[in-house]
Amino acid sequence: MADTGIIAIGSYNDNDADALDEIGAVRVPSLADALALPEAERATVKAIAYKSGASIDGEVLDAFPALGLLSNFGVGYDAIDVAAATARDVAVTNTPDVLNDDVADLAVGMLLMQMRRMRQADAHVRSGMWAEGQPFPLNRKMSGARVGILGLGRIGFEIANRLAAFKMDVHYWSRSSKETPAWTWHDSPSALAEAVDLLVVAVVGGPETENIVSKEVLDALGADGVLVNISRGSTVDEAALLDALEGGRLAGAALDVFENEPKIDPRFAALEEVVLQPHQGSATHTTRAAMGCLQRANIEAFLKGDTLLTRVN
Amino acid sequence: MADTGIIAIGSYNDNDADALDEIGAVRVPSLADALALPEAERATVKAIAYKSGASIDGEVLDAFPALGLLSNFGVGYDAIDVAAATARDVAVTNTPDVLNDDVADLAVGMLLMQMRRMRQADAHVRSGMWAEGQPFPLNRKMSGARVGILGLGRIGFEIANRLAAFKMDVHYWSRSSKETPAWTWHDSPSALAEAVDLLVVAVVGGPETENIVSKEVLDALGADGVLVNISRGSTVDEAALLDALEGGRLAGAALDVFENEPKIDPRFAALEEVVLQPHQGSATHTTRAAMGCLQRANIEAFLKGDTLLTRVN
Repeated sequence: MADTGIIAIGSYNDNDADALDEIGAVRVPSLADALALPEAERATVKAIAYKSGASIDGEVLDAFPALGLLSNFGVGYDAIDVAAATARDVAVTNTPDVLNDDVADLAVGMLLMQMRRMRQADAHVRSGMWAEGQPFPLNRKMSGARVGILGLGRIGFEIANRLAAFKMDVHYWSRSSKETPAWTWHDSPSALAEAVDLLVVAVVGGPETENIVSKEVLDALGADGVLVNISRGSTVDEAALLDALEGGRLAGAALDVFENEPKIDPRFAALEEVVLQPHQGSATHTTRAAMGCLQRANIEAFLKGDTLLTRVN
Repeated sequence: MADTGIIAIGSYNDNDADALDEIGAVRVPSLADALALPEAERATVKAIAYKSGASIDGEVLDAFPALGLLSNFGVGYDAIDVAAATARDVAVTNTPDVLNDDVADLAVGMLLMQMRRMRQADAHVRSGMWAEGQPFPLNRKMSGARVGILGLGRIGFEIANRLAAFKMDVHYWSRSSKETPAWTWHDSPSALAEAVDLLVVAVVGGPETENIVSKEVLDALGADGVLVNISRGSTVDEAALLDALEGGRLAGAALDVFENEPKIDPRFAALEEVVLQPHQGSATHTTRAAMGCLQRANIEAFLKGDTLLTRVN
């Protein structure tokens, strides 16, 4: 084990791997590999750079008895049992804010791509059908539509600000109403879905929001409704979503996150009116570099005894 | 010939066709069909509802000696020789404004789709490659980038307003500087292209803007540059564009309009880093209905002797 006491778990790109090597991190591809290290090595681990969706509970934490910091790559840390970490005096950090713009950009792009059927339109041109004189069908106007943001946190705000520039009528749900421009708060996810045609899910993951987009919410969204999810696959009742899409009780969806990703339900690939993205909300060079930087900055602060930059517990 | 003196030239959807029938228009599929009508019938034509890209010059106008109105479906009327119409006392109207939002929406969607590689990402998921564990490559951040709007008319403004909400640094070229938010005017298309990474073409068509996006402008945009065109195919030197894309001297493009559309150059379909759309900027149900309505409202005003709603000459 490196005497720095740092291990990096997960699949890092070359730049991040180099930077982790520079701070003396031992890199292992998965949590299982980390747990398979000899007990004596695990006992020296003080800080973990984490980039994985594999669950970390109290039992996993107990395998690293000297651990003081779990530095997560990503804003969502629903894979980590934070209460268990706190109980063991393990600090948890994430990489918020630096990815808000990218995730919001993708959400808007997905909504436009779904409503204007841009994937199908590109295929229509690329296949030569347009050149043969076959017209492409009309689609739906986005500007001016009523949109709901489910979860008005930092990312939700970024999405709403962008959609407001499309002259959209912005509605939202969050646990309490917030100080916003002329946006309308609703007191439940169903009430929000009832009021809008387009619903963008931007809540945090975790047990509290599991299946918050229930069959009831999808029914309220209705046959003209479009669902966009850039949060976590766990927030949507996927069986109900697939049933609604296949049954024509929902017009379409644009999804960057899924249950069991990347091994997603094969029923999705058969659907025409959905946009499918490989959980790439924050996947730009610029933003991933910033996320890696922040992850390592938390580790360096921890090792120096400084205040952590983005602690969540 | 119907005694209303109206003919409708072009391919109209069912709603518009019904509405044209109601006002007593005789419908013919193409300009050639209209010109093939017997001379005596052509001589009764007072108003034409026009929806075609086929050129109307003085000789064509002379085939309809009683013509008083050419009511174009669409904001762009570069297929019509307006000077020749004016010389013959033929009023020309178009359908501005009602389509600005849709065209701007598509431009933003095309830019996001190109930069975040959303088409390729969708295919990556749909094909099962993601499920097999193959990661999708990182792509480019859009928010915060420097964008240039070539032509700050009504549609250019709508595009700029939307992109400003993505925290982009907005630059523009138009014949003179305009009153705008903190956007930067440049005195030539090349100077604009030099200053930005992303260039959105929103000028009007016609001889004055033919190949305004020249090889020089594309070179100034550079190897990291992305070109978006929602104006007219005629505004871009397409041979230079294809060469730059194939030679890696331009990062990508997103095109809704082409020379010789719909019979576009087959070289486009072989390019990975381009988004291809079938001239669908205004192609939503809502907007096309509004355009048809405005086209007919101009005809009705003309027949009643009222002021035309959206005259261009």
